[in-house]
Amino acid sequence: MAQKAALIVFAHQSPASFNAALRDAAVQELSGQGFRVTVSDLYAMNFRASATQDDIIGDLKNPDHFQYGDETMRAWTEGRLSDDITAEQRKLEEAQLIIFQFPLYWFSVPAVLKGWFDRVLTQGFAFSLQKIYSKGVFKDKKALLSFTTGAPESMFQPDGIDGDINVTLWPLQNGILNFCGFQVLAPQIFWDPVHCPAAVRAQMLEGWRARLGGLLMEKPLTFAPCELFDLSFQGGFRLRPEVKEEQEAQPFGLSTGHHLGKPLPPGDQTRAPSAGGNRK
Amino acid sequence: MAQKAALIVFAHQSPASFNAALRDAAVQELSGQGFRVTVSDLYAMNFRASATQDDIIGDLKNPDHFQYGDETMRAWTEGRLSDDITAEQRKLEEAQLIIFQFPLYWFSVPAVLKGWFDRVLTQGFAFSLQKIYSKGVFKDKKALLSFTTGAPESMFQPDGIDGDINVTLWPLQNGILNFCGFQVLAPQIFWDPVHCPAAVRAQMLEGWRARLGGLLMEKPLTFAPCELFDLSFQGGFRLRPEVKEEQEAQPFGLSTGHHLGKPLPPGDQTRAPSAGGNRK
Ligand SMILES: Cc1cc2nc3c(=O)[nH]c(=O)nc-3n(C[C@H](O)[C@H](O)[C@H](O)COP(=O)(O)OP(=O)(O)OC[C@H]3O[C@@H](n4cnc5c(N)ncnc54)[C@H](O)[C@@H]3O)c2cc1C
Ligand SMILES: Cc1cc2nc3c(=O)[nH]c(=O)nc-3n(C[C@H](O)[C@H](O)[C@H](O)COP(=O)(O)OP(=O)(O)OC[C@H]3O[C@@H](n4cnc5c(N)ncnc54)[C@H](O)[C@@H]3O)c2cc1C
Repeated sequence: MAQKAALIVFAHQSPASFNAALRDAAVQELSGQGFRVTVSDLYAMNFRASATQDDIIGDLKNPDHFQYGDETMRAWTEGRLSDDITAEQRKLEEAQLIIFQFPLYWFSVPAVLKGWFDRVLTQGFAFSLQKIYSKGVFKDKKALLSFTTGAPESMFQPDGIDGDINVTLWPLQNGILNFCGFQVLAPQIFWDPVHCPAAVRAQMLEGWRARLGGLLMEKPLTFAPCELFDLSFQGGFRLRPEVKEEQEAQPFGLSTGHHLGKPLPPGDQTRAPSAGGNRK
Repeated sequence: MAQKAALIVFAHQSPASFNAALRDAAVQELSGQGFRVTVSDLYAMNFRASATQDDIIGDLKNPDHFQYGDETMRAWTEGRLSDDITAEQRKLEEAQLIIFQFPLYWFSVPAVLKGWFDRVLTQGFAFSLQKIYSKGVFKDKKALLSFTTGAPESMFQPDGIDGDINVTLWPLQNGILNFCGFQVLAPQIFWDPVHCPAAVRAQMLEGWRARLGGLLMEKPLTFAPCELFDLSFQGGFRLRPEVKEEQEAQPFGLSTGHHLGKPLPPGDQTRAPSAGGNRK
């Protein structure tokens, strides 16, 4: 059997940061499990974040009106994407597990990592009109967000001033990872490592190592499967009428509930956490 | 009285794009209303997206462990931020109205615009520990997201496969704009201009021009005001107990409801739309 491979996409400027320590812990633990681990250290690579014409080798189809999505889809088909994009696509193809390690910047990923998503997940390579969500291209791969914050956990609770962290993660976990078909593992969140005592940081690192040990056995988050929706332009990619009827009969009526899920009852380990359910 | 000023932060590669047409319409309409309009054309400026040491002029406080937030906050105080950041901060300071014009990329802004947020909204300049949300620095300014999509509107409905667009916009509208105190005007969304008939695009442009005419009279979106929360570290920035009690007594119990709000009853023009309520 071919060796298992993992990819860590890392977005911190400093090798002395807590993020770097978390990356190193993951490299070590996964290597110990027999993974071949590749790290894309985006700042060190001077990875370009902006989606421009430089991403395409050779002539544009429509130089007078540059449409990034169209031109890159075409370039991918013809093997004319820039070398840095092609290299990342190879790493992603080879990996069964992808970890994104970053500090939360403005309720999202740092721009350099957003640039990785914008530039690497080319239409054709990462999705097509037929291959999205539970029919997605990467359905045999697992991915997870591992990140640090400046906010304490209480701020990102449903009753906290920043709102439920799962709402904030929706565009990343659903809009990018689930969209491309990845099995999304529960996010690994390190709350405010800057202001906590050193002992707490040591515990956080230990906790991460321990989780990495069993990562591949975890059940991924639950998202609404494609089958619930009418995936046609006439149907508008909306819930099928019969599903909608069923949901409307439920106590809380129709909401984004079919997406964000209900929190797990405490102590219930038998079901996988939903996309709205935060692993503790 | 000093002339009113508006800033358009524009993130599209092509002058022939629909986004460029929307930008031009805004420049024209706002100029006609007596605004001095400045455009930051991020791709044309070759605006750097990544947050790096190059953003600081002169010596770092801690070169062995680069902490971007700390170093830029210090550089801002001492007038040592890079010229491109300082220039954007001046434009932002002078404007009473800021429009972000972009195509939706992966359920969010293109990386180059994320980089504008990451690099320009420096701590000290755009917020401080005391000045966030409804006490935020930019509370006398209005801001709005104006964007195009590839998805039809039905996909981003609450029962659509992408989920409610307002959930997707939460990190941008709440986490960035509301966080910095901006009065957030309802988003202006142009659904799938690529695949619609030319006549529909012409209507979209007309609708945008018409809205721009009355923009400054609009009520901003409603977000939960700071007063609902206990803004202390002991209080954890969570809902005050008495507010929580009151909310728990309500039919749908406690959820992110205090943040995302309830949709407006159709035809009700008397209340401002909530952050969850999409202008039609
Ligand atoms: C532009 C910008 C936007 C931001 N937006 C948000 C936001 O929206 N929400 C939010 O919550 N936060 C936000 N933040 C804060 C940011 O998320 C935190 O500053 C960041 O997550 C801290 O992680 P770090 O790795 O940089 O910490 P570091 O400062 O690198 O590390 C923290 C501590 O860990 C120590 N450490 C390093 N290695 C080890 C080790 N091996 N073992 C033990 N300790 C170690 C370090 O010495 C340091 O004391 C933002 C910051 C910036 C710059
Ligand atoms: C990396 C990436 C990620 C993406 N992620 C998402 C996503 O998460 N969700 C999503 O919904 N979409 C997504 N998209 C699609 C993207 O949002 C759309 O392609 C984009 O919004 C279309 O806007 P545009 O200005 O580029 O259109 P254009 O192609 O520039 O213009 C559309 C049409 O308008 C015409 N036009 C130009 N000027 C005028 C004028 N003055 N009057 C009338 N017509 C005019 C053009 O000729 C063209 O026919 C993504 C695309 C990319 C590249």
